[in-house]
Amino acid sequence: MTRTGRTGLWLVGAGGSVASTVVAGLAAMRVGAAGPGGVVTETSAFAGAGLVDTADLVTGGHDVHEVSLTKRVEDLATAGVVPHDLARLVAADLDAASERVRPGYAVGAEDQGAAVRRLAEDLRDFREREGLDRVVVVNVSSTEPPVDAAEVPADVAALEAAWSRGEAPLPPSSVYAAAAFTAGCAFVDFTPSTGARLPVLGELAARAGLPWGGSDGKTGETLLKSVLAPMFAQRALRVHSWSGTNLLGGGDGATLARPDAFESKARSKAAGVGAMLGYPVEGPIHIDNVADLGDWKTAWDHITFSGFLGTRMTLQFTWQGCDSALAAPLVVDLARLLDLAMQREESGAVPALGFFFKDPVGSDEHALAAQYDALLRWVRGEGWTGR
Amino acid sequence: MTRTGRTGLWLVGAGGSVASTVVAGLAAMRVGAAGPGGVVTETSAFAGAGLVDTADLVTGGHDVHEVSLTKRVEDLATAGVVPHDLARLVAADLDAASERVRPGYAVGAEDQGAAVRRLAEDLRDFREREGLDRVVVVNVSSTEPPVDAAEVPADVAALEAAWSRGEAPLPPSSVYAAAAFTAGCAFVDFTPSTGARLPVLGELAARAGLPWGGSDGKTGETLLKSVLAPMFAQRALRVHSWSGTNLLGGGDGATLARPDAFESKARSKAAGVGAMLGYPVEGPIHIDNVADLGDWKTAWDHITFSGFLGTRMTLQFTWQGCDSALAAPLVVDLARLLDLAMQREESGAVPALGFFFKDPVGSDEHALAAQYDALLRWVRGEGWTGR
Amino acid sequence: MTRTGRTGLWLVGAGGSVASTVVAGLAAMRVGAAGPGGVVTETSAFAGAGLVDTADLVTGGHDVHEVSLTKRVEDLATAGVVPHDLARLVAADLDAASERVRPGYAVGAEDQGAAVRRLAEDLRDFREREGLDRVVVVNVSSTEPPVDAAEVPADVAALEAAWSRGEAPLPPSSVYAAAAFTAGCAFVDFTPSTGARLPVLGELAARAGLPWGGSDGKTGETLLKSVLAPMFAQRALRVHSWSGTNLLGGGDGATLARPDAFESKARSKAAGVGAMLGYPVEGPIHIDNVADLGDWKTAWDHITFSGFLGTRMTLQFTWQGCDSALAAPLVVDLARLLDLAMQREESGAVPALGFFFKDPVGSDEHALAAQYDALLRWVRGEGWTGR
Amino acid sequence: MTRTGRTGLWLVGAGGSVASTVVAGLAAMRVGAAGPGGVVTETSAFAGAGLVDTADLVTGGHDVHEVSLTKRVEDLATAGVVPHDLARLVAADLDAASERVRPGYAVGAEDQGAAVRRLAEDLRDFREREGLDRVVVVNVSSTEPPVDAAEVPADVAALEAAWSRGEAPLPPSSVYAAAAFTAGCAFVDFTPSTGARLPVLGELAARAGLPWGGSDGKTGETLLKSVLAPMFAQRALRVHSWSGTNLLGGGDGATLARPDAFESKARSKAAGVGAMLGYPVEGPIHIDNVADLGDWKTAWDHITFSGFLGTRMTLQFTWQGCDSALAAPLVVDLARLLDLAMQREESGAVPALGFFFKDPVGSDEHALAAQYDALLRWVRGEGWTGR
Repeated sequence: MTRTGRTGLWLVGAGGSVASTVVAGLAAMRVGAAGPGGVVTETSAFAGAGLVDTADLVTGGHDVHEVSLTKRVEDLATAGVVPHDLARLVAADLDAASERVRPGYAVGAEDQGAAVRRLAEDLRDFREREGLDRVVVVNVSSTEPPVDAAEVPADVAALEAAWSRGEAPLPPSSVYAAAAFTAGCAFVDFTPSTGARLPVLGELAARAGLPWGGSDGKTGETLLKSVLAPMFAQRALRVHSWSGTNLLGGGDGATLARPDAFESKARSKAAGVGAMLGYPVEGPIHIDNVADLGDWKTAWDHITFSGFLGTRMTLQFTWQGCDSALAAPLVVDLARLLDLAMQREESGAVPALGFFFKDPVGSDEHALAAQYDALLRWVRGEGWTGR
Repeated sequence: MTRTGRTGLWLVGAGGSVASTVVAGLAAMRVGAAGPGGVVTETSAFAGAGLVDTADLVTGGHDVHEVSLTKRVEDLATAGVVPHDLARLVAADLDAASERVRPGYAVGAEDQGAAVRRLAEDLRDFREREGLDRVVVVNVSSTEPPVDAAEVPADVAALEAAWSRGEAPLPPSSVYAAAAFTAGCAFVDFTPSTGARLPVLGELAARAGLPWGGSDGKTGETLLKSVLAPMFAQRALRVHSWSGTNLLGGGDGATLARPDAFESKARSKAAGVGAMLGYPVEGPIHIDNVADLGDWKTAWDHITFSGFLGTRMTLQFTWQGCDSALAAPLVVDLARLLDLAMQREESGAVPALGFFFKDPVGSDEHALAAQYDALLRWVRGEGWTGR
Repeated sequence: MTRTGRTGLWLVGAGGSVASTVVAGLAAMRVGAAGPGGVVTETSAFAGAGLVDTADLVTGGHDVHEVSLTKRVEDLATAGVVPHDLARLVAADLDAASERVRPGYAVGAEDQGAAVRRLAEDLRDFREREGLDRVVVVNVSSTEPPVDAAEVPADVAALEAAWSRGEAPLPPSSVYAAAAFTAGCAFVDFTPSTGARLPVLGELAARAGLPWGGSDGKTGETLLKSVLAPMFAQRALRVHSWSGTNLLGGGDGATLARPDAFESKARSKAAGVGAMLGYPVEGPIHIDNVADLGDWKTAWDHITFSGFLGTRMTLQFTWQGCDSALAAPLVVDLARLLDLAMQREESGAVPALGFFFKDPVGSDEHALAAQYDALLRWVRGEGWTGR
Repeated sequence: MTRTGRTGLWLVGAGGSVASTVVAGLAAMRVGAAGPGGVVTETSAFAGAGLVDTADLVTGGHDVHEVSLTKRVEDLATAGVVPHDLARLVAADLDAASERVRPGYAVGAEDQGAAVRRLAEDLRDFREREGLDRVVVVNVSSTEPPVDAAEVPADVAALEAAWSRGEAPLPPSSVYAAAAFTAGCAFVDFTPSTGARLPVLGELAARAGLPWGGSDGKTGETLLKSVLAPMFAQRALRVHSWSGTNLLGGGDGATLARPDAFESKARSKAAGVGAMLGYPVEGPIHIDNVADLGDWKTAWDHITFSGFLGTRMTLQFTWQGCDSALAAPLVVDLARLLDLAMQREESGAVPALGFFFKDPVGSDEHALAAQYDALLRWVRGEGWTGR
C-alpha cells in the first residue's frame, strides 16, 4: 500500500477524557502496546481504501484549560479506562502531544472574530511545523446548549459585519468550525453541539471546498437502538414504548445534568427511534449524573412491543460502557475518513459518515446496517446512495 | 392486485400452541379482530410481490393426539397468549379447522413406508376437497433428537428398499417431509428437527421440483444475536464471552429439557455468533424448563466485550417473549413465501428464507439485516445473492 | 376461634383499581375462587390474634365519579390484573358493593365543613345499615400534592372557625380523615397524601380515642429497598449510589407524572435509604408515566457499592409488579389490624404498622425485618418496641 | 478497650485470591491505606465485644504451591480487585507473610496420618514463633467434591487405625481441620468442602474443647436470597420459580465447572430458599466458568411470584461482585469471632456464625436479618437463641 502522507488530527477539548484516550491510544498502537480494537477503519473491509495510516496521524489541539496529558492518562488508568502502565509506556508521546495543545477560545474574554483568526493560525502553524498534508479538526469538548439558528447571521458577509461590531454570534463549537474552514481543514463534531450546522458555516466550508461531518458520536444506548429498532420494524413487531435511563459520571455526567446541555443531547438521542420505526413511540429518556460512575456509563432501556394478536412482550437491556474507550477509536476513524474526503476533494457535509453519529448530517438513515453499507460504498468510491 | 388463488397451510403438530395460534390468528385477521402484527409479509416492503392473500390460506394438519382447537385457544387465552374472547369470536373457524386435522405418524406403531403414503394421501385429499392451488407443509411439532445422517439411506432407491423390509429409517419430521414431496407440496421445518435436511429428501424434492426451507424459527434470543453480533463486528468491538440462559415452560420447555432435544436446539442456537463475529466465543448456553412460565420465555444474555486499549465492557439483555405469538406470524410468512416459490416453480432449498431461521438451509449468513436484504431481493425476483 | 363480629372497610376512591381489586378479591376469597395470596395477616404468624375474619369485612366507599365495580373488574381482567371470569363469578357481590358507594367530596363545589358532616353521616349510616361493630376508612384515591402544614388551622377550634367562614383549609385526604374521626372510625392512608398527618387531625382522633395509620403503601421498589439496604448495612458494604426508574401507566402513572404529585411520592420514596444506611446516597429517582404499561409497574434500580479495599461492585434489579395486586391485600391487612387496634381501644398513630408503608407514621424504622418483628410484637399485645 | 493479645489467622490455600486479599487488606488497614469496608465486626454494633484488634491478627498459611503474595497481589491489582499500588505499599508485609506459608497436604504423595502431625506442628510452631495467644485456621482453598460420610471412620480410634494401615480416609479439608484441632486451634471452613463436618472431626474438636464453624461463605447470590426470600414470605407472596445463573472465571470458575465440585456448591446454594419460604420452589441453578470474567462474578436470578388473586409478577436481579473483595473481610470477621469463642472457651460448632454462611453448621436459619440478630446476641454473650 502506498503511504498517503501524514495527517493532523486536531482535537478541540484536547485535555478531555476522549481526546486523552485518542492520543494515548494512537501512541500505544505505534509502540505495539495496543491493538486496533474498536477502530472500525482497521477492519478488513477498509483495507486498500487509501486511508492514512494510524501511525501517520499527528495529534494537536485546543483547550481552554492547561493540559497535561500524562496526568490525564494516569487518572484514566486509575479509573480503569486505560491500562495501568500506559502513561509510563508512552510518556514521550504524551509530553510531545501536550506541547502541541494551544489555548482554546475564551468565551466572553476574547473578541470572536479575532479568536477565529487566532485559532486558524494555530491550525496553519500546526500543519506547517509538522509537515502535514492535511488536518482534520474534531470537536470532543463539552456539550453546549442548542442555539437558535435564526439568531445567527445567515451568511459570511453578515457574520463578518457582526464581528466587526464586536459581537459574538457563534457558539464556541461553531467558532472552532469557522477556524477550521478558514485554515483549510476539515471539521467534524463528535458532540451534539452546533459545530458546522449553520448556514454560514456551510458557506465557509463550500467556499474553501472542505468536507465536514457530525453530529454526536453514537457510542452506547443509541448504538443499540440503531440495530434493535430495525429488527422490530423488519419483523413487523409493533413497539409501544421505549424508555431509557442513562447514568454517567465524570465531566460528561455533570455537563449533561445541566438542563440546557441535556436538551441538546436528548434531541439528538430521540431523533432516531421514530424514524427507524416509522411511527412515534412514548417513553421517557433520562440522562443522570451519578458521580460515582466516573467515566463509565450504564444505560437501561425498557421496550414494550407486541406481535401477533397484540400479545405484549418486553425487551430490556443494560449497557455498561466506558465512553472514552468507545468514542476514542471512532475519532480516529473520523479523522481517517475525512482525510480521505479531503484527498478526494469532496466538499460539504458527508452523509456517508452517519454510521458514527446519533444525529447524522445530511441523512435520515439511523439503521446501523444500512449506514454501514452506505459507508462502505462511499469508501469504495461508489458515492453516497443512502437516504 | 390479482388474486393468486387459494393455498393450503398444512401444520404438522396441528394441536400445538404455535399451530393453534396460527389458525386462530388467521381467523381473527379474516373477521377483523386482529391486525397483521408480526406478519413480515404484510409490511409495505412486500406489497405487489404476488403473495397469496392471508385470507386465502386454508389450514389443515396432522397431529398424533386428538385436537380441539377451541379448547387449545381457550387455554392460550387463559395464559395471556391470545385475547380473552378469541375462541368465541372465531369458534366456527376453529371447529372447521379442527375437522381438517388428520392423525399423525404413530412412530413404532405404523409401517413407515405405508405412513408416508397415508400422510401424502391426506395432503392430496386436503388439496382437492378445498380446491387449493398449492399446499405448503410446515412442521411445528415437538423438537426431535438429532439423527446421524450417515445411518439414513442416501437415495430414494435405498430408502424404498428399507421400507420394503419394514424398516423405519427416517425420523418423524422427515417422514412428513417425504409425504409432502410425494404429494407435490412444499415443506418447511420451523423446528430444529431433521425435516428435509437429508440427501434422500433432497432427491425426493428435486424429483418433484419442489422448494423447501428451514430450520428452527428465529424468534427470541437468537433473533437478538443476529442484530447484536453484527453490531459488535462492524464496530470492531471484540466479544470475549456470550452467555445465555433461556427459561421456558409449556410443552416446549419440557421437550427441550430432554438432553437429546436440547442438543438439537443448542447446536442450532450456537451456530450463528461465531459465524457473525468471525471467531469463536466462550460462554454457556442453557435451556431450562420452568413450568411456571407456561408459553412465555425469558432469555438473559450476558456479553463481555472490549474496545480501544482493551477496556472491558458488558451488555446484558432480558427478552420476555411469548413464543407462540412470535412464531405463528412467521409460519404465515413462510407459507406465503414458499407458495411464491411454488408459483415460480423454484425447486430445492430456498436460502433466501434465512431471515426466519436460526440454522438457515443453504446459507452461512446469520446477520438479520443482510438476511432481510437477501429476502427482499429474492421476493422481487432478483434471485439469491447472499452467501 | 371466636368471631370478632363484622367490620366495615370503607374505601376512599372506591372506583379505583386498588379498591376494585380489594372488593373483588374479598368476594373471590368468600366463594373460594381465590386463596389468601398476598394477605399478610392470613399467614400462620397472625393466627389467634383476634383479627376479624376476612369473610366478615363489608366494603363500601366514597368516590367522586360514579362507580360500576363490575365494569372496573372486567377492565382489570382484560389487563391481566385479575382472572378472566372474576367479574362474572362475583357479580352479585360487585353489584351490592357498588350500591354501597356514596358520592365523594367535590372539591371547590361543596362547603368543606358541610362535606365533612355529610361524609361522616355516610359512614354512620353504613355502620348502622350493615350492623357493623367497627369501620376502618382507607384512602386509596389519587395522590395529592403536599400541603404546607403551617397554613392549616392547628387545632379543632381554628378549623371549625375557618369552616364557619366558608373556607376549605384541608386537602381532600384530610377531609376524609376528619369525617372518619367524626363518625368514630379508624383511618389509614395508603397514599402519600396528607391524610391524618396534621395536628388538627391528630386532635380529632385523640378526642374520639381512635387509631390511625399511614402513609404510602410499600408495594414495589421501596419494599426491595427495605431489605436490600439493611443487607448492605449489616455486611458493612458501602453504598455509593442508588438510582431508580419507575415506569407505570394507568391512572397512577398519569397522576404521578404531574410534578406536584410526584413531589409527594418522591419525598416518601427517598426517606428510607439514607435512614437505613446511616448516610446519604446520591442517585436519581424517576417516576414516569408509560401509558402502555397500564396497571403494571416496572422498576429498575442500579446500586453501586464497595467492599474491602474499596473495590466497586454493582447490583441491579428489575421489579415487574402489578400495583393493584400488591396493594389490595395490604389494604385488607390494614383494615384487620386497625380493627384490632379499635378492639383494644388504642388511640393515635400506630407506628407498629410501619411494615406496610414507605413513610411510616410515628417511626423511623424502614428495615422490613425489624418492622415485621415490631408488627408481630404489637399484634401479640407486647406493645410497640421499635424506634 | 483492653487489648486481647495477638491472634494467628492461618489460611489454608494461602496463595489463592481470597487469602492474598486478606493478607494485603490487613496490611493496608494497618498502614492506613484502606478502611474497614466490608468488615462486619468493625461496625459499631460490635464495639466493646472484646474482639481482637485487626492490627493484632498475624497471618500464615498452608498451600500446595509455592506462594509469592507480592506476585498474587500484583495480579489482583491488574484485575481491578485491589488498588494499583497496593503491592508496593505493603511489600514488606507481603514478603513477611509469604515466609509464613508452609507446604500444604500433598494428596496421594504423603501419608495422611503423618501429614496431620506435620501440619499441626506447623501451627504450633507458628503460634510459638509469633508469640500468639490463639490461632484460627480458615480454609479458603479450592472446593472439593462431597464425600460420603458413611465411608469415613466414625471415631478417632477408627481413624487412627486407618492411618496406621496407611489409609487416607479424610478429604484434604478435613485433614486441615484435624491438624487444627490437634494443635489446639479453632477451624472454620469458608468453602463448601467437608472440613470439620464429620463425626470424627467433631470428636477431635470436643476432646480439645475447640470451637469451629462453616460452611461456604455467603458472598453473592445467596446473600441476596437470604433477604429476598424472607421478604416474599413475610409479605405472603407465593414464589413459583427461582432460577439462577452464576458466571465466574478465575480458579473458582474452573473448579466449580467440574461436576463433582459443582455438586458441593449447588447443594450448599439450594439449601436455603425452600427453608426460608417453607415450600419447595422449581428453577435451575447454574454455575458456569467464563474465563474472561476473572475474579468477577455475575449472577442473574429470575423469580416468578404471585400476589392477590394469583396475579403473576417477576423480580430479576443482576449481581456483579468481586468474590475476593467480598470474601476477604468476612474471613477477617470469622477469625475475630472464633478467637472470641476461644477466649470464652466455647467448644463445638458455633451456629451463631450462620450470618456468614450458605450452609450454616448447627442451624436451619437462612434469613439474614434473623442471623444478624442471633450473631449480635451471641457476641453480647446472650447465647445462641436461633433455630
